[in-house]
Amino acid sequence: MEFLTSNQNQRVKDWKKLQTKKQRIRANSYIIEGWHLIDEAIKSGKQFKELMVVDPEDLDGLNLNSETELFQITPEIAAHISDTKTPQGIFAVLPLDSYHEEIPEELSGHWLLLDNVQDPGNLGTIVRTADAAGLNGVVLGGSSVDIYNPKLIRSMQGSHFHISLYSGDLNDWITSFKQQQIPVFGTELNEDAKSYKEVGQPENFALVMGNEGNGMSEDTLEQTDQNLYIPMRGNAESLNVAVAAGIVMFQLIKS
Amino acid sequence: MEFLTSNQNQRVKDWKKLQTKKQRIRANSYIIEGWHLIDEAIKSGKQFKELMVVDPEDLDGLNLNSETELFQITPEIAAHISDTKTPQGIFAVLPLDSYHEEIPEELSGHWLLLDNVQDPGNLGTIVRTADAAGLNGVVLGGSSVDIYNPKLIRSMQGSHFHISLYSGDLNDWITSFKQQQIPVFGTELNEDAKSYKEVGQPENFALVMGNEGNGMSEDTLEQTDQNLYIPMRGNAESLNVAVAAGIVMFQLIKS
Repeated sequence: MEFLTSNQNQRVKDWKKLQTKKQRIRANSYIIEGWHLIDEAIKSGKQFKELMVVDPEDLDGLNLNSETELFQITPEIAAHISDTKTPQGIFAVLPLDSYHEEIPEELSGHWLLLDNVQDPGNLGTIVRTADAAGLNGVVLGGSSVDIYNPKLIRSMQGSHFHISLYSGDLNDWITSFKQQQIPVFGTELNEDAKSYKEVGQPENFALVMGNEGNGMSEDTLEQTDQNLYIPMRGNAESLNVAVAAGIVMFQLIKS
Repeated sequence: MEFLTSNQNQRVKDWKKLQTKKQRIRANSYIIEGWHLIDEAIKSGKQFKELMVVDPEDLDGLNLNSETELFQITPEIAAHISDTKTPQGIFAVLPLDSYHEEIPEELSGHWLLLDNVQDPGNLGTIVRTADAAGLNGVVLGGSSVDIYNPKLIRSMQGSHFHISLYSGDLNDWITSFKQQQIPVFGTELNEDAKSYKEVGQPENFALVMGNEGNGMSEDTLEQTDQNLYIPMRGNAESLNVAVAAGIVMFQLIKS
């Protein structure tokens, strides 16, 4: 195990650069940090390219692949390469699973399509909720947030190891769902909207959630088969998008 | 209207100090910022003690009480007293509505009890969701977060103007609910837990949600009438507490 002590070391510089999408694509790698994510990755059978720890005793009992390069790093390097204020002193570099930009030929089951959801914290919570609800996949549409964005990775809490994530043009995705007779539900309060409790629990569906402030885009809205809304009794003007997504997903899925 | 130009002005210092609970109690005041909250306060009939704007034209059309003291401030002062990185240049000081520490003598309807929920962002989202679901009140128990904490105020998006917020000891609250034959539901996965879809939509209930990492405290758990859980089909270990609260509240309430 190599012991690195300087932020000027080329490896350290390379890890730091993985905070940008450009560099992640160039290196075909992304970085995760903290015990929970490392554990989830191992449980999901992922292999690390590199593993970095402040305290080498932390490696005891970790079930690592022999091809993983191990590094001991200083707390200063941990602080330097971390995306958080309180790094836990353990990091790993994984290969990108590819950017999942192709629409699968056969679509079935339950899908969530996100129309320009912007906040990485909201996105991560939504993906984690979709995982808990047992959805088949989540499509990030029109979003500026990259799937391997460190804040998104952190807030998904490992759910990206379990559920398929795609990025792509929602219009293309919706066309594919319609070709396969899968109903596409929008979530916008308009004249034709039905309560989300009135559509039963369909065997297959695609549910679209809109942007935090602006809702769904006109284009996407026009293509949906049915719009759903959540009846509200109080005075709040809207729900947080992650909460709304959770309420609708858990209603539409049999449990 | 007085024009203030220095962070050293005593008024400015007093506004800045309202970020601490101690000073809020001493001044019997709290501060809000941004257009949405100012609008919500006016719509809810709240009266401002003081209103501060960077651009005096912003006051046009605002329906203000004649007793509100008006101040023009510089962008530097706005940045100084703001709790955000991008202040909108409008602030108001309101009287504390009291700390709502007494349990009402008659309890009925739908209540949410929060057992040590810590993150102001989560708390704010939960209160906003409870408002949208039409709950009667939310009790912050064992929490270190003050009701008038600026981050909490911001994330509630005005819902504290609509819904009653209390802070207090959950054991005392639960005792009061039980004396009035109101069922108290915990949310903890244990042997006796029922799915949240199996208890119908009771006319009255108190629902307890636990801490982000540790769940409900033993004490509180022992006092509940029934524990509820959300069945999960995927691999996520848990839901975000605000999402879970939203899913259960919207199920338990008729819509």
